[in-house]
Amino acid sequence: MVVQAVKWIGDIDGYLELVDQRRLPGEFVSLQCRDTRFLFDAIKTLAVRGAPAIGVAAAYGLALALQESKAGDSPEKALAELTKAREYLASSRPTAVNLFWALDRMRRKAEGFVEGEAGATVTALREAVLAEAKAIHSEDVEMCRQIGLHGEKFIKEGAGILTHCNAGALATGGQGTALSPMFEAHKKGRKFSVYADETRPLLQGARLTAWELKQAGIQVAVICDNMAGWLMKQGKINAVITGADRIAANGDAANKIGTYSVSILAREHGVPFYIAAPSSTFDLSIASGAEIPIEQRAAEEVTSFAGTRTVPAGVSVWNPAFDVTEARNIAAIITERGVIENPDTEIISQCLAPSSRGS
Amino acid sequence: MVVQAVKWIGDIDGYLELVDQRRLPGEFVSLQCRDTRFLFDAIKTLAVRGAPAIGVAAAYGLALALQESKAGDSPEKALAELTKAREYLASSRPTAVNLFWALDRMRRKAEGFVEGEAGATVTALREAVLAEAKAIHSEDVEMCRQIGLHGEKFIKEGAGILTHCNAGALATGGQGTALSPMFEAHKKGRKFSVYADETRPLLQGARLTAWELKQAGIQVAVICDNMAGWLMKQGKINAVITGADRIAANGDAANKIGTYSVSILAREHGVPFYIAAPSSTFDLSIASGAEIPIEQRAAEEVTSFAGTRTVPAGVSVWNPAFDVTEARNIAAIITERGVIENPDTEIISQCLAPSSRGS
Repeated sequence: MVVQAVKWIGDIDGYLELVDQRRLPGEFVSLQCRDTRFLFDAIKTLAVRGAPAIGVAAAYGLALALQESKAGDSPEKALAELTKAREYLASSRPTAVNLFWALDRMRRKAEGFVEGEAGATVTALREAVLAEAKAIHSEDVEMCRQIGLHGEKFIKEGAGILTHCNAGALATGGQGTALSPMFEAHKKGRKFSVYADETRPLLQGARLTAWELKQAGIQVAVICDNMAGWLMKQGKINAVITGADRIAANGDAANKIGTYSVSILAREHGVPFYIAAPSSTFDLSIASGAEIPIEQRAAEEVTSFAGTRTVPAGVSVWNPAFDVTEARNIAAIITERGVIENPDTEIISQCLAPSSRGS
Repeated sequence: MVVQAVKWIGDIDGYLELVDQRRLPGEFVSLQCRDTRFLFDAIKTLAVRGAPAIGVAAAYGLALALQESKAGDSPEKALAELTKAREYLASSRPTAVNLFWALDRMRRKAEGFVEGEAGATVTALREAVLAEAKAIHSEDVEMCRQIGLHGEKFIKEGAGILTHCNAGALATGGQGTALSPMFEAHKKGRKFSVYADETRPLLQGARLTAWELKQAGIQVAVICDNMAGWLMKQGKINAVITGADRIAANGDAANKIGTYSVSILAREHGVPFYIAAPSSTFDLSIASGAEIPIEQRAAEEVTSFAGTRTVPAGVSVWNPAFDVTEARNIAAIITERGVIENPDTEIISQCLAPSSRGS
């Protein structure tokens, strides 16, 4: 069964349930978020992670904010509280685009409701807010499913599929992006094996991808990142599928560090390399990947593990969070709107035009 | 200062001192080996590792064996004890070629001494055995130094050098193989930076290479293995130097898993890739790397770290210890006899012919 990382339980007095990803794979623990402070901490400490999953969770967070409301019968006061909660939750992960997007959409909905409905009650506002959060969630579920339906054809019977990091159900409101084609192919009864790069330094591949594929009954093996090339050389990999964090107008795709190397190794071995990501991942304001800034993360992620030091004190570390895979190494980008093969600036702008659908 | 992994302290009543590599980089502890049982455990549990270092340590082990002797005044009895100790130490790492080589050379020396010298005393035998161990050790020191002298020209002023795993002073009796050119370039006052792949799963690069380069005052930074390609893309790497465990007649080289990927990434970025290894690493009985068997190691190396599980229970792991880098991706093999550029079967057989010396 495909795990569900984010769930709303009950009606407007209900709560948000999250899979605690900090404790995987050792323990499977569900968190019940009943207030915004708890949710803030869950986002900040990566109990919930993955841009789409964070966006969905934060949207539900505004429904929680209205449960805490001291506004009495005043929708205007409730709206002011919601706006304040929006600011608060937005500060939990300062660079998470989906987080801001979801919170802004929720605020606009709430504002529109209060301004538009004469005699609106706080209860009706709460219903409207929860409905909007559910809409964001179900759109995310559908987006994931469409990526899966468009991408499953790339997973042939008996294939070996390599993935890097975690772009699965744990990272979204639905069944993931990179893993979604695998879930769809599995649903169709196709047999295949997935190899999950462990994905240093934070091991999302070992801890999360392997866990959720196993939950779903899909054959999975973990490898260290440095084994991917040799695995391809043995002929065991027929396709690579990863997610993306941001895609430039020409198709260059930023994703977890290590993706770039995998794309080079895939080309060397004649293995097609696919990116699976929603169309919202495209940032057409940047012409190429050269314009994507790469965040450097804390040295401690590399220098110690589970409290044991692995790098001598005083030795420096280079720890970029992402790298950029060039469009020329990408066989196709699988989106919810269709598949963009051999991506370049022209075909991407055609496929993403409002009236168009991909192939 | 370059660390010395293996040292004999004192005369024939002395002892063997080893750097305890299990505890690096957290603690720098020297082990005093005063008997063969202690040394056996040190080899078996990787307190001393690296094929040449194990060979040298085991040679000294036979000097320790004679300290334990109950043979009284009988050189023949002492020789029988030495032969037994040889068997015992040889069983500590069943696949270590240098270990067998060093132990056999020691046994032949001891046998020749007892047979050749009429009226030989046990004390004279002990002196001959210690002298042979010291000869093996100093040949190893000189081999390392010659590799460094031949290879240092590949490290230019201001260069960035990538290495994988640990083929340094900690792995040999001398100043290492892959790291030796770095020590020689540093001695000449050249400034350069080394990037050490952390080298999953056992992190020899992070734990050992970074530690010994820092000890020697050489600028070093650790990266996760999956960052090497992106680092090259940033133009930060001018050469790659690694060791090798076994080199086929055509120049294909087996080395720590991950080396193959690094060689592909280096070629993609126009970065020369060098192997540094003694000529004894060549196995001319195998035509190409395809004939080199690749050991699969225990899943536990990948599935947990410092007692914390990183891979879900029940998920399988692929954990080859080595991979094979094709000769066509190797710019040169640096040996103690000289540099073999663009290695292939013909040039290797010429360079390794008894009468010949490399360039």
